[in-house]
Amino acid sequence: MDLTNKKKIVNDPVHGFINIQHPLVFDLIEHPFFQRLRNIRQLGLTYLVYPGANHTRFQHALGAVHLMTSAITVLRSKGHHITDQEAEAATVAILLHDIGHGPFSHSLEYSIAHNVNHETISRSFMAELNKQMDGKLTLAISVFEDTYHKRFLHQLVSSQLDMDRLDYLRRDSFFSGVTEGTIGSERIIKMLDTKNDELVVEAKGIYSIEKFLIARRLMYWQVYLHKTVVVADQMLIRLMQRARELAQSNHPLFGTPSLLYFLSQNVTEADFFAKEGESATPEALLHFANIDDNDIMVAVKQWVTNSDPVLSALAKMLINRRLLKIEYRNAAFDATRIEHIKSEVAKHNPSIAKHVDYFVYSDSVSNNAYCSSDESIKILYNNGELVEITEASDMLNTQVLSKEVKKYFFCYPKELRVN
Amino acid sequence: MDLTNKKKIVNDPVHGFINIQHPLVFDLIEHPFFQRLRNIRQLGLTYLVYPGANHTRFQHALGAVHLMTSAITVLRSKGHHITDQEAEAATVAILLHDIGHGPFSHSLEYSIAHNVNHETISRSFMAELNKQMDGKLTLAISVFEDTYHKRFLHQLVSSQLDMDRLDYLRRDSFFSGVTEGTIGSERIIKMLDTKNDELVVEAKGIYSIEKFLIARRLMYWQVYLHKTVVVADQMLIRLMQRARELAQSNHPLFGTPSLLYFLSQNVTEADFFAKEGESATPEALLHFANIDDNDIMVAVKQWVTNSDPVLSALAKMLINRRLLKIEYRNAAFDATRIEHIKSEVAKHNPSIAKHVDYFVYSDSVSNNAYCSSDESIKILYNNGELVEITEASDMLNTQVLSKEVKKYFFCYPKELRVN
Amino acid sequence: MDLTNKKKIVNDPVHGFINIQHPLVFDLIEHPFFQRLRNIRQLGLTYLVYPGANHTRFQHALGAVHLMTSAITVLRSKGHHITDQEAEAATVAILLHDIGHGPFSHSLEYSIAHNVNHETISRSFMAELNKQMDGKLTLAISVFEDTYHKRFLHQLVSSQLDMDRLDYLRRDSFFSGVTEGTIGSERIIKMLDTKNDELVVEAKGIYSIEKFLIARRLMYWQVYLHKTVVVADQMLIRLMQRARELAQSNHPLFGTPSLLYFLSQNVTEADFFAKEGESATPEALLHFANIDDNDIMVAVKQWVTNSDPVLSALAKMLINRRLLKIEYRNAAFDATRIEHIKSEVAKHNPSIAKHVDYFVYSDSVSNNAYCSSDESIKILYNNGELVEITEASDMLNTQVLSKEVKKYFFCYPKELRVN
Amino acid sequence: MDLTNKKKIVNDPVHGFINIQHPLVFDLIEHPFFQRLRNIRQLGLTYLVYPGANHTRFQHALGAVHLMTSAITVLRSKGHHITDQEAEAATVAILLHDIGHGPFSHSLEYSIAHNVNHETISRSFMAELNKQMDGKLTLAISVFEDTYHKRFLHQLVSSQLDMDRLDYLRRDSFFSGVTEGTIGSERIIKMLDTKNDELVVEAKGIYSIEKFLIARRLMYWQVYLHKTVVVADQMLIRLMQRARELAQSNHPLFGTPSLLYFLSQNVTEADFFAKEGESATPEALLHFANIDDNDIMVAVKQWVTNSDPVLSALAKMLINRRLLKIEYRNAAFDATRIEHIKSEVAKHNPSIAKHVDYFVYSDSVSNNAYCSSDESIKILYNNGELVEITEASDMLNTQVLSKEVKKYFFCYPKELRVN
Repeated sequence: MDLTNKKKIVNDPVHGFINIQHPLVFDLIEHPFFQRLRNIRQLGLTYLVYPGANHTRFQHALGAVHLMTSAITVLRSKGHHITDQEAEAATVAILLHDIGHGPFSHSLEYSIAHNVNHETISRSFMAELNKQMDGKLTLAISVFEDTYHKRFLHQLVSSQLDMDRLDYLRRDSFFSGVTEGTIGSERIIKMLDTKNDELVVEAKGIYSIEKFLIARRLMYWQVYLHKTVVVADQMLIRLMQRARELAQSNHPLFGTPSLLYFLSQNVTEADFFAKEGESATPEALLHFANIDDNDIMVAVKQWVTNSDPVLSALAKMLINRRLLKIEYRNAAFDATRIEHIKSEVAKHNPSIAKHVDYFVYSDSVSNNAYCSSDESIKILYNNGELVEITEASDMLNTQVLSKEVKKYFFCYPKELRVN
Repeated sequence: MDLTNKKKIVNDPVHGFINIQHPLVFDLIEHPFFQRLRNIRQLGLTYLVYPGANHTRFQHALGAVHLMTSAITVLRSKGHHITDQEAEAATVAILLHDIGHGPFSHSLEYSIAHNVNHETISRSFMAELNKQMDGKLTLAISVFEDTYHKRFLHQLVSSQLDMDRLDYLRRDSFFSGVTEGTIGSERIIKMLDTKNDELVVEAKGIYSIEKFLIARRLMYWQVYLHKTVVVADQMLIRLMQRARELAQSNHPLFGTPSLLYFLSQNVTEADFFAKEGESATPEALLHFANIDDNDIMVAVKQWVTNSDPVLSALAKMLINRRLLKIEYRNAAFDATRIEHIKSEVAKHNPSIAKHVDYFVYSDSVSNNAYCSSDESIKILYNNGELVEITEASDMLNTQVLSKEVKKYFFCYPKELRVN
Repeated sequence: MDLTNKKKIVNDPVHGFINIQHPLVFDLIEHPFFQRLRNIRQLGLTYLVYPGANHTRFQHALGAVHLMTSAITVLRSKGHHITDQEAEAATVAILLHDIGHGPFSHSLEYSIAHNVNHETISRSFMAELNKQMDGKLTLAISVFEDTYHKRFLHQLVSSQLDMDRLDYLRRDSFFSGVTEGTIGSERIIKMLDTKNDELVVEAKGIYSIEKFLIARRLMYWQVYLHKTVVVADQMLIRLMQRARELAQSNHPLFGTPSLLYFLSQNVTEADFFAKEGESATPEALLHFANIDDNDIMVAVKQWVTNSDPVLSALAKMLINRRLLKIEYRNAAFDATRIEHIKSEVAKHNPSIAKHVDYFVYSDSVSNNAYCSSDESIKILYNNGELVEITEASDMLNTQVLSKEVKKYFFCYPKELRVN
Repeated sequence: MDLTNKKKIVNDPVHGFINIQHPLVFDLIEHPFFQRLRNIRQLGLTYLVYPGANHTRFQHALGAVHLMTSAITVLRSKGHHITDQEAEAATVAILLHDIGHGPFSHSLEYSIAHNVNHETISRSFMAELNKQMDGKLTLAISVFEDTYHKRFLHQLVSSQLDMDRLDYLRRDSFFSGVTEGTIGSERIIKMLDTKNDELVVEAKGIYSIEKFLIARRLMYWQVYLHKTVVVADQMLIRLMQRARELAQSNHPLFGTPSLLYFLSQNVTEADFFAKEGESATPEALLHFANIDDNDIMVAVKQWVTNSDPVLSALAKMLINRRLLKIEYRNAAFDATRIEHIKSEVAKHNPSIAKHVDYFVYSDSVSNNAYCSSDESIKILYNNGELVEITEASDMLNTQVLSKEVKKYFFCYPKELRVN
C-alpha cells in the first residue's frame, strides 16, 4: 500500500491549506460513513436566514483536524511529549467526533433515530470502523471516551475550549457572513499548555478567552438561536413527527427506503450495536449511514401533495418559506392567549382542526455561554497557579456565564390560515 | 401592501451586506421559482474536489444584484442618466439571468430537459413571472434580450465583463479556497463607463482587465476544468443517460415524480411555453421548477441498488467517490488504445460488456478565456478613442486569448473492474 | 474653481475605497495643517512591539470620515432629516477631531507644548482654519463643541460609540496584526438610530456592543498598555523632560527650530490663540504645526552623543531598543525596594547618580473600558424604551466596566548599569 | 547565553505570526544596523498617493524570513536534504538581502552615497556583521553571493521568484490597498521544487506563475511607477542634488551630521570597506547606518526656509504636496516644447532662472515584468523536462515579457510659477 498517496492537501476557505498527515485519517475520510457528511449541512436550516451557511459537517471535521495538528505542534514546542500514536489518535478522535450526526441534526436528533442521541450513534460508527480497520482506532476511542491518562488529549477533542468549537465558531461566522462572531483560533491555540495532564491556557490569553466567550454568545443569539431559524427548526421537527405518525399508521408516504425504515418503527439504542457474536454491520447503522440532507429535503418536497392536510400544510410552508409567525421573549407566554389562538386557528382551518398543536405552540430554547462544571477553562499563571476563567476574569459576569439563558417562543400562523 | 418590508439586507460572506432596494426584486426573490435556487449548487460536483464549494445559485444571483447596484451608482456618478425604472429592470434581469439552470447544470443541461438549453428555460421562467406579475418584468426582459436602446444595461447583464462574471469568479474563488482566482470586482466596476450607449472601461483599468482575464483562465484550469471534476461530470451525464434509457423502456427506477417526468419522455422547447390562448403555467415548467440537486442526489443514491448493472455500477462509483481514472492532454487519444481498453473492460466485466461505452470513453473539453467576437471588452482612452482589450494590451497573447483551448480526456476503470 | 476635482477616491487597506464627497473636506485635507498628520504615527512607539503599527493619524482621520459618511447614510435611510450642511459639518468635525495631536501624543502630550492639552490645540487649529476659510467651519465647530441642537451629530464625533473609536479600534487591530481586536464597525453603524436628537443603538445590536467593549478592552491590554510600549513611552517622556531642563539652562542641544522653540520656553494656552485684534496666525501654532515624528526621532538620535550623561544614556537606550526593565502588577510597589534600587543604580553609575529618578521610577497607568457618566451608550428597545448598555446587558460586569482598572509599573535598568 | 529567549513570535498583518527560529537571526534583528530599517519606508514617497503605504523595510525583511521558513519546509517535505546550517544561512541571507538600502532608496540610491549602489553597501554591512559575529555569517554570505553549490538556496534569496518578491508584492499590495496586486505566495511556495540544485516550479503551478507575473506588472504601473510617485521621486532627487551642490560650495545647510557627511563630499565604494589590516568599522558605513527617513524629512522641512531659492522652492513644493505637473506617455517628448516651457518658466521666475533644469525636465522610467536572461523561472514537467516559463505558457506574450517597457515623462510647474 502506497502511503505517499495518503498524504493530501485540501483547500479550505477558512484555514487555507489543510494537510492530512496520517494515512489512517486519510482512509477514514475516504470511508462512505465519513463521505456522507459531505451532504449534511453544519447548520441545518440556517441557510434560510443566512444564505451563505451551506457549509457541511465534512468541511468542519477537516477544519477541526487542521486545528488539532496546530495544537499538537504548539504543545510539543512547549516541551510536552506526545507520541506519534497519540497524535494520530487525537486526530482521529476529532475527525470522528460528530460522525453520529444525522441530517438537520440540531432539530432532528430525536426525530429520525427516535430516542437515540448522536453521541450513541457516534460510538456505534467508531466501533464499526474499528472493527473494519482491525483495531486501529482503539487508542482514538480511548481518547474520545476520556479513558486515556493524558486527559488533555480528550480535552482537545471535547471541552469548553476544544478544537471542535474553535473550528465551528470561526467557520459558522465565516460562512454565515456574521463576521463579528469570528474568533482568534490560531492565537488561542498558541496559548494552550498542559499542567498535570490537563489542558490549560497561559495567563496572557485571558483577554482572548473573554473574547471567545463573548463571540460565542453573539453567535448563539444572532445565528444559532435566531428566531427565524428556531421557527423553521420547530416546523421541521413537527413535520417529521407527523410523518412518523402517518408512517406508523400505514398512511402512504413518499420517502427513501432508509428514511422510511426509521419513520415506520421505533429503533432503539441496542439496534445500533452488533449483538454478541454477530459480525455484520447492524442494519440500523447501515440505514442511518444512508440518510443525508437530500433525503429529508426531497421527502418534504413530495409531502406538499400528500393527502394528509397536516403534513401537506407544514411541508408547503417550509418549501415556500412561508413560516409561522414567532414571538420571542424572556418569560413564558400566557396560556389563555395560546388557547385562544389555537381555537381561532381550529375554527378557520377545519381540515386541521384536530391537529392544531402542529401549528400553534409555545416552548423554550436555552443556552449557557459557558458551563463551569463540565470541562472548565483553566488559566495558568506564571507562578504555576491554576484559576478557572470565571474567577480569573474580572470582566465577565460569572453568574450570567454559568446561568442558562432561556428564551420562550410562541409560534402560530400569521393570518390564522395555515394555507 | 407594506413596501418598507420589501427592503432587505442580506448577509453575504463575499460582499458583506447586500441591500435589496427594489420591491419587485424582493417579490421575485420570494417566489418559489427563485427560492428553488437555494438547492442548486453553483458549481455542481466541484465540491468533490474543493469541499468548500457548496455555494448556491441563489447566493450568486444576490451577489450579482449587489454588483449591479454598485455599477449603476458608478455610472450615475459619472453623469450618465439611468432612470429608476431602468435600474430596476437591469437589477431584475441580472437576478434572473440564470434562473433557467437546473441541478448540476454544467453537466446535466441536456440530460434532464433533453434538447432544451438553459437560456430557453430562463426565457420561459421570465415570461411566466411577467404574466403572474402583470407585465412588471417587460422592461427587464427587453434589457435581458438586448432589445433596449441603452445597450450598456444589457452588457451589465451579459457580456465579457458582466456582473454575472464579476460575481461568480470572486465567489467561486472564495468558496473553493482557490484564492488566487479572486478578482477586483469593486475596482473594475469603479472603472466602468459608457460611450455611445455601450459599456466601456477607462484606460487606466487596462491592467485590472488583464488580471481579470488571467484570473479567469486560472479558475478554468484549476477549478472548472479540474480533471477530477470533469470525470465526475462525465460519469453523472452517462448515469443520467442510462436512467433515461431505462425509464423509456419501463425499467423500474426510483425518482421523484418531476424527475421521472423528464426522464421518461422527450420534452421539447415548445413544452416550456404556454400555447396560444392558454393561461395555465406549462406543465414542463412546473416540473422543471420542482427539481433541484436533492432530487438528483437521492436518485443516484437509490440507483446503487437498481437491478440494471450499468446504472448501479455508475451510481456506486459516484456515491463512494471511486471515480474512473482520467487522462488529460492536448492531443486526441489513440483510437486503438481506446478500443483495446474497451475490450479488456468488457472481458473483465461480463455484466456490462454490452455497455462498455458507459465506462470507457474519450472526448474533449474546451475554453477560451476571452471571445472577442461576442460582446468584447472596449477600453476608452482619454482622447475618446475606443480600443478592444486584445489590442490595447501589449501583454496578453491575443491569439491565445481568442483561440479555444481544447483538452482531450480519456476515462476508464482503474483496475479494469467496474465494481 | 473646479469642484469636480475636489471629489476624490482614496485607497484604504481597512475600508477599501474612501470617497471624499465635500469640497470643503477636500480643501482641509490639502491644508498643510492636516498634511502634517501624514508624519505622525497613530500609535507612537507601539511599532517597537508591533512592527506593522506604522499607520498615521492622517489615515485614521480619513477612515473616520468614511464611517461618518456611512453613519449619515444609515440615519437618513431610517427617516432622520440631516441637511447637506449638517452632513458636511459632521464630516469636517470628525476629520479635524484629533488635529491638535502632536508627535507621540500619547506620551508627549504635555512634554512639547507644556501644560497645554491636545483638545485646546485642536480648537486653536479649527479657529485658525475657520478664519482662513471665511467662516465655513462655523457649523462644524458648533457640532464639535456640542453646542448644536442635534446632539447626535456631536455624538457621532465624540462619545462612547463615535466614529473615532469605530475607526481606530479596527485600524489599530488591523495594522498591529492583533486581529482579535477587530470590531464590526459596519454592523454597528447599521444599528445606529436617534431618539430625541440623541444617538442610540437598536436593541438587536446589544451583542455587537458587548463585543465592541470586550474588543476594546483586549486592545487596551494587548496593545495600548502593553508593558513594553509603556516603558518606551515613559522613557521618551523623561528624555524630553531632561531635554527641556537642558534647553532652559542653555545646554547645547540638537533640534529643529520649532522643537527648540517649545523646549526652551514654557508656552501657555493663551499663546495658541490670536490676541484681540490680531489677525496673524499665532507663532506657537505655526511652530506646533511644524513638528512631527521626524523631528523627535532625529533629535533623539543626535542626543545619543550629547555631553549630558542623562540625555545621552536615555537616547541611546531608546535608539538601540535596550529598554529599562518593567514590572507590572495590580498593587503599588514597595517604596523601600524602589529606594534600594535607586541607591544601587546611583552607586553603579556615578555619572548620573544625581539624576537616578530618570532611570528608576514607579507609577501607574489606567483604563476604564467604558465610562457610563460621559456620553453613555443607550439601547433603544422596540417599545421606545431607552436603557443604558450596562443595564441592558446581562453579561458584562457593570462594576468592572465603570471602574477604572489601574496597573502599577516599576522601571529600572536591567543590570543596574544604564549604559 | 539563554537561547530560549532568542525564539520570538512577531505579529505581522500580512502573514499572521512570524516565528524567528534561529538565534543568529534573532541577534541580527536586534543589531542597530538592522533596527534602523524600522525607520525606512519600503515604498519611499508612495504614501503621498497611497496613504496606507507606510510599511517599512524592517517588516518586509521579517516577512521574507517567514516565507523562507515555509519554502525550506516545503522543499524538505519533498525529500530534499537541507541541513540546519544551510537553512540558517538562507534565512540570514534573506533577512539581510536589502540591508544596504538607505532612506527613499528607490529615488535616493545615488544621491546620498554618491556613485555607490545599495548592493555594495549590503555587502559592506554583511562583512562588518560577519566580523562582529566571529564569522557566523560566512555561509550566509556565500549563499547570498551565489558561490554555494546548492544554487537553489541563492535562488530563494535572489531570482525571478525569490522570497523577496513573494513578500514585497503581497505586502505592498496589502498596505497600499491595491488588493488586485496580491499574489498567492503560499500556493506558489507549495509548488516549488528543485532539480539539479536549481529552483523550479511544478508544472501545475504554471497558472499561478502567470498570475504572479501579471500581478507584478499591475503593481508596477499602478503603484511603483504611478505618475504622482514618479514626479515626487524626481523632485526629491533634484532637491538632494541641489543640496549636494550647496553643501560642497559651503552654503549653510541644515542637516544631521551623518547626512551632511555624505552631501559635503564624494564618498566612494572603497570608503565602505575597511582597509587592509584595519579592524575598525569604516566611517562611511557608520554614518550610512545613522541615516533614515527621518533625517531626510526633517532636512527637507528645514530647507523650506533656506536662502537658496532653488532649494527652498523644491522643498516647499514637496512639503506642501504642490508637486510639478507630470505628463506620461510612450514616446519621447518634443524637445522644442520642453525648451519653450523652460524659457517661459525662467521668464516668470527670475530667482531660479539660471536653474530652470531643476523644475522643467523630461526623462523615462522603465520596467520589464520578467527578465528571462537572469535567473529565469523554470517549469518542471512530470516527465522531468524543464521549460522556461515564457515557453511553457501559451498565454503570456513572451516578447512583451522580456522587452523593457519604457514610459517617458515630462515635468514642469503647473502655472509656470514655482512658488
